[in-house]
Amino acid sequence: MKRTGTVALALAACILVATAAMAAEKKVRWNMAMTWNSTLTPFVNAPTKVAKMVSDMTDGNFVIKVEGAEKHKAPLEILDMVKGGQYQMGHSASYYWKGKDAVTAIFTTMPFGMNNDEQNAWLYYGGGLELMQERYSQFGLYAFPGGNTGVQMGGWFRKEIKSLDDLKGLKMRIPGIAGEVFAKLGVNVTNIAPGELYTSLDRGTIDALEWVGPGMDIKMGFHKIAPYYYAGWHEPATDLQFLINKKEFDKLPPSYQAALRTAIQAASADMHYENFAMSADAWASIKTEYPNIKVMTFPDPVLAAMKQATDEVLDGYAAQDPFFKKVLDSQRAYMKKAREWTKMSEQYYLEQSAKVEQ
Amino acid sequence: MKRTGTVALALAACILVATAAMAAEKKVRWNMAMTWNSTLTPFVNAPTKVAKMVSDMTDGNFVIKVEGAEKHKAPLEILDMVKGGQYQMGHSASYYWKGKDAVTAIFTTMPFGMNNDEQNAWLYYGGGLELMQERYSQFGLYAFPGGNTGVQMGGWFRKEIKSLDDLKGLKMRIPGIAGEVFAKLGVNVTNIAPGELYTSLDRGTIDALEWVGPGMDIKMGFHKIAPYYYAGWHEPATDLQFLINKKEFDKLPPSYQAALRTAIQAASADMHYENFAMSADAWASIKTEYPNIKVMTFPDPVLAAMKQATDEVLDGYAAQDPFFKKVLDSQRAYMKKAREWTKMSEQYYLEQSAKVEQ
Repeated sequence: MKRTGTVALALAACILVATAAMAAEKKVRWNMAMTWNSTLTPFVNAPTKVAKMVSDMTDGNFVIKVEGAEKHKAPLEILDMVKGGQYQMGHSASYYWKGKDAVTAIFTTMPFGMNNDEQNAWLYYGGGLELMQERYSQFGLYAFPGGNTGVQMGGWFRKEIKSLDDLKGLKMRIPGIAGEVFAKLGVNVTNIAPGELYTSLDRGTIDALEWVGPGMDIKMGFHKIAPYYYAGWHEPATDLQFLINKKEFDKLPPSYQAALRTAIQAASADMHYENFAMSADAWASIKTEYPNIKVMTFPDPVLAAMKQATDEVLDGYAAQDPFFKKVLDSQRAYMKKAREWTKMSEQYYLEQSAKVEQ
Repeated sequence: MKRTGTVALALAACILVATAAMAAEKKVRWNMAMTWNSTLTPFVNAPTKVAKMVSDMTDGNFVIKVEGAEKHKAPLEILDMVKGGQYQMGHSASYYWKGKDAVTAIFTTMPFGMNNDEQNAWLYYGGGLELMQERYSQFGLYAFPGGNTGVQMGGWFRKEIKSLDDLKGLKMRIPGIAGEVFAKLGVNVTNIAPGELYTSLDRGTIDALEWVGPGMDIKMGFHKIAPYYYAGWHEPATDLQFLINKKEFDKLPPSYQAALRTAIQAASADMHYENFAMSADAWASIKTEYPNIKVMTFPDPVLAAMKQATDEVLDGYAAQDPFFKKVLDSQRAYMKKAREWTKMSEQYYLEQSAKVEQ
């Protein structure tokens, strides 16, 4: 009797420990769909690093399989696929479903909008992230910043833009809000699949196009056929997003939730650094091989017209949707305040430094 | 016999599971010493968030107690205390032990050096982090970037600096390499404890001082007694560091190592966003309450002399230590390449935007 009692006690203790062990080591397998093909660095590095970090932090118990567009064939359906639960999470850019809900576009970026520092400050310390969650919760999703490209270049042009007249009839690939702005200025805005862009520009089907920046543009080869590279105005700090199915996230053990959120923050910051480094390297190489390429800024009257058209487009959306107006007002107010600080810190520093360069 | 065998088997299985459970739930308690008092936001928020993230990700099993300088009373001894194992980790800024090893200073920042984007690109994708580990391994430490302030302001001045003559005999609190640079230009460089700075400036014991930027300066009240706020030149992207005792880190279970590294990356990026937001807010409030404060840039001949003196000071250190030269050469080469990209992206964007501001 005594011995049986001891065995029973030992077994009971074992069951308790085993239960605790199973809770701590819960196996979770998720799938994440990306808008990008698996080769599109540095974008794909953010989701890939999130998956690795989460696995490392959970001793391989929380595994996220990352799937590129070459496999799921639905690059612009990430929102629907995560909402529907086919994938527990996704990596994309909010402006791809502007047609479904216009306000999501300006969580990515907007013409003449905030730069990277300003946007992060707005998101994390200026109420931006709360607005983003509020909107995405209607889809049953959480959304988190997923890597920022910083300033994207204004694009490759075969001819110099000397005046507003040069925009009229210009055939250009430029999507999103910037495309709407350029259309107002008489540009013949088209959309062309990425794989056909080089040939279209080479054959004159289009006169200009925008892509991202030197780091990602160099592989496309545009610098070989278009000598004018215009400074950015339309995507000053394009933020990608991780979308997560709310029900799936809420079911995770709290330590896995924490691991996923922390990994997202770390990998997103890292993607910004990597994209900057890639652009610095690529530009150095383009400049050496193609010394005749000219980096241009737009003439003042063109900038003024682009700004006016931008305000008209944004105010138009705001008039149709009070929530768009709420986000737009929040961004405009934050930027007005933050830009003062950007000027006296970053801009004045760069200007002072330029004067003493050797 | 059969029954006893079953019990034995069950017990053996239980022991295996229990062992696995204990491995997964290893209790670790660490202490982290900061250079800062516990109230110095946003600096203290990076270590505080690291501790919280790590605890959340390990179900409270890996606990890091964060201790401010008001408790350990040794703000500038972090390197020695972590090296000696009194604390498993610390949070500080490398330039505080310039006297012990000059090269550590330029892992923090240097006059006319890289901005935040450039420095992160150098650290993570330009070989910087490897150089930092190489140097810190001689102390038995790992070092990781621990939050970047971005551009620090050049300081508060009671009188306008119109020429190099105005620097001669000027009494200023400005530590580090920038202090050496100003001393070369005839500035009477002093160091004064933070608690006495306001009174010293008010009574004319000093004519000028530098601190950080609006977000942290506002609590010090300098704007009430010095009307000239000069743009930054000397600390364009001050990086704090986490130092970790190598032996202690190597003893951690791999999942805890991954959790700590990921938390450090996430919390450090976050501190940069928070510092930016605090400065944007503080400057808006200073400008409203003290509209007469003038934001100034230094005159061209002063900038040229500061740059020349900076090169002399840095080259002087490089001549004494081949490793200093290796790091300096790496930073200079990276910056030369990266600044081209900074100009055509960030700087041109800010300039184009300024033209159309309303």
